[in-house]
Amino acid sequence: MNHFFKVKSLGQVMDLVPTFPEVETREVPIAGATSRILARDISSIQDLPGFRRSTMDGYAVVSSTTFGASESNPAWLTLAPSIAMGEVPGFTLVPGQAARISTGGMLPGGADSVVMIEYAEAVDDTAIEVYKSVAPLQHVIDSSEDFKKDEMVLTRGTRVRPQEAGLAAALGLDRLQVFKRPRVAIISTGDEVVPVTEAPGPGKIRDINSYTLAGLVSEAGAVPCSYGIVKDDEDQLFETCQKAVTECDMVLISGGSSVGVRDFTVDVLSKLADTELLAHGISISPGKPTILARSGNKPVWGLPGHVVSAMVVFQVVVLPFLNRLQGLAKTEEPRLTIPATLTRNIASAQGRSDFIRVSLKRDDTGLVAEPVLGKSGLIRTMVLAHGLVEIGENVEGLEKGTLVEVMPI
Amino acid sequence: MNHFFKVKSLGQVMDLVPTFPEVETREVPIAGATSRILARDISSIQDLPGFRRSTMDGYAVVSSTTFGASESNPAWLTLAPSIAMGEVPGFTLVPGQAARISTGGMLPGGADSVVMIEYAEAVDDTAIEVYKSVAPLQHVIDSSEDFKKDEMVLTRGTRVRPQEAGLAAALGLDRLQVFKRPRVAIISTGDEVVPVTEAPGPGKIRDINSYTLAGLVSEAGAVPCSYGIVKDDEDQLFETCQKAVTECDMVLISGGSSVGVRDFTVDVLSKLADTELLAHGISISPGKPTILARSGNKPVWGLPGHVVSAMVVFQVVVLPFLNRLQGLAKTEEPRLTIPATLTRNIASAQGRSDFIRVSLKRDDTGLVAEPVLGKSGLIRTMVLAHGLVEIGENVEGLEKGTLVEVMPI
Repeated sequence: MNHFFKVKSLGQVMDLVPTFPEVETREVPIAGATSRILARDISSIQDLPGFRRSTMDGYAVVSSTTFGASESNPAWLTLAPSIAMGEVPGFTLVPGQAARISTGGMLPGGADSVVMIEYAEAVDDTAIEVYKSVAPLQHVIDSSEDFKKDEMVLTRGTRVRPQEAGLAAALGLDRLQVFKRPRVAIISTGDEVVPVTEAPGPGKIRDINSYTLAGLVSEAGAVPCSYGIVKDDEDQLFETCQKAVTECDMVLISGGSSVGVRDFTVDVLSKLADTELLAHGISISPGKPTILARSGNKPVWGLPGHVVSAMVVFQVVVLPFLNRLQGLAKTEEPRLTIPATLTRNIASAQGRSDFIRVSLKRDDTGLVAEPVLGKSGLIRTMVLAHGLVEIGENVEGLEKGTLVEVMPI
Repeated sequence: MNHFFKVKSLGQVMDLVPTFPEVETREVPIAGATSRILARDISSIQDLPGFRRSTMDGYAVVSSTTFGASESNPAWLTLAPSIAMGEVPGFTLVPGQAARISTGGMLPGGADSVVMIEYAEAVDDTAIEVYKSVAPLQHVIDSSEDFKKDEMVLTRGTRVRPQEAGLAAALGLDRLQVFKRPRVAIISTGDEVVPVTEAPGPGKIRDINSYTLAGLVSEAGAVPCSYGIVKDDEDQLFETCQKAVTECDMVLISGGSSVGVRDFTVDVLSKLADTELLAHGISISPGKPTILARSGNKPVWGLPGHVVSAMVVFQVVVLPFLNRLQGLAKTEEPRLTIPATLTRNIASAQGRSDFIRVSLKRDDTGLVAEPVLGKSGLIRTMVLAHGLVEIGENVEGLEKGTLVEVMPI
């Protein structure tokens, strides 16, 4: 494994996303499918709703019967039997007839529209007067108006929202083929790191990254698997990494940001079987000391130890890989960003992509993004922040008043 | 229970939100706390990080020693012992000395800043030259720079993001007091509704709302509890409602939108013990035929049967109540909206709040919102939509080119 000259731009790292394969798929009940990613295209096996359905309470009619009807010149219609909800009407409607129908009811043969109850009045038990004309298919959902038989309705790689689950239900699909939730190993390293339940004492800090990363992994729809804290011991880290690579689909090693610790992580990765270093440093800030390797076909990350850096790198760099693993289509969810006006100038170095934490507020001018100042070792800055703003690698900085796109965090 | 004259405006219904109590609280491990709502304020029990910490690889120094240092006039410093990661340095630094330190290391007493390794050069084993001055606290996180002891760091009603979980970990809180996830009963009604596993046959449709509503409830952070499909039978609906109100914190009855079915639902609710009708109709579209009752201290909803109407009413009306139940602070998450430019005129009736489905696209001008046309009985329109745009009750419509705020769905 070659350790050197592997600092990559953000774009170069993103080009590696499709080189990792998707995880396998499985079938899940639709009741638990929300937020999962579809692993197969879905076509409609039938017309939906499959029959002409009323969208109003009123009277099913042959629309032409009502043409010209008005308050002063009502149409006079004789009553056919009322239509019970969920039943197939046992008759065909002819011009001059009307049949009482409720919202959701099935129109009888011959009927092509519904007169709202507000525009009809009973003359007696056998007839009504209609005060307003209706157009063909007015107040009606036609047989294939929602979906046509054999129409492609959902595509592989789509994230299932409540409405996609509802569509599957409408088609009678009580189970869906989705991608497995990737298992993501989280390994914390560092002689200075102690478990959350321990008092750290001077010089030491509690393990924060295990929890922030687990939260980010869960939010992304994957399963965080904690491998605890590994001291700066090469054998121990090697064994833990090997186990994690075997058991999980992606590995996150969050560790020190010092050059020594990074080299140490690279040394350990270089001993893993079938492992290739892809990036040793990424030209982003915060997050430059990020390592990416491919072990077999799995991404293994060395993330910076600073809490903010680790979170930003996850959001900006790791997440697109995780989304690839879990089968999310590239066309899906180009990350939702929120336009806002920057409240102050931000300087940035050329040749790297900077990610600025911002808090969002609403003032008279609309949504404004206020940079959250503070070092990347301060969890406070992430607690105060609502999002990140990218300053591209060819931009020297952004001026106060610039409209920026904020990635929510 | 009085059935009449209860059509309310959206604002009037929202005024009822605080009249419902929050659910009880419980303690959960921080590893599973992401997305939960804090039930207690949290103060910092200590200074964080609790010691002076280096943010760079380099040399801990007394900053004044470096003042005036430059390439042409380096400062000459003698080496104190190197500082091991996670250890308390066993010495105090005096002016004229430097101690090798890594990122995350603890500064020795006396030291107030760190010279980056790039700006220092070893003279021999005992001394270095420094080419750049550092200011006091440069490249250092001070002892209480993240949080001060006794500072309020998180407030009751905050939703726990990964960073809040990380902050709790930093403070040694391995468990957090959060609100229970509310249990939300979902009852589907209607003689025309069949389970997803059944072929509906003409005049009938599969149960969609149970799945869309369950997905929405899950997304909101609550627990959906399905009570299946109840036919339009008063005794059966009464029994199911009674059971649901007893077992859950909120009840959603999704049913027909016909006047008859609505009256039927109101009749059933009126027989539940200790139950008061709060709204019989809300002046919104879609979703007017929505019923809200208070049973004991729990909200019970009669939602419209149309799939789109039920989803829109959930997002716009039910969700604020659910957020209240689960303890979300009013200041938290004023629903995130995305500004976009409307691509066509939309008409609207005065006196009601209209919610228009839109799809979002990016064109040369930025983000545009394209209205998704189609009836509120068509699940397709929700699958195509990315968000909702509200047209307020005093607005007659919106013109093409208007900047609108899109609620993601």
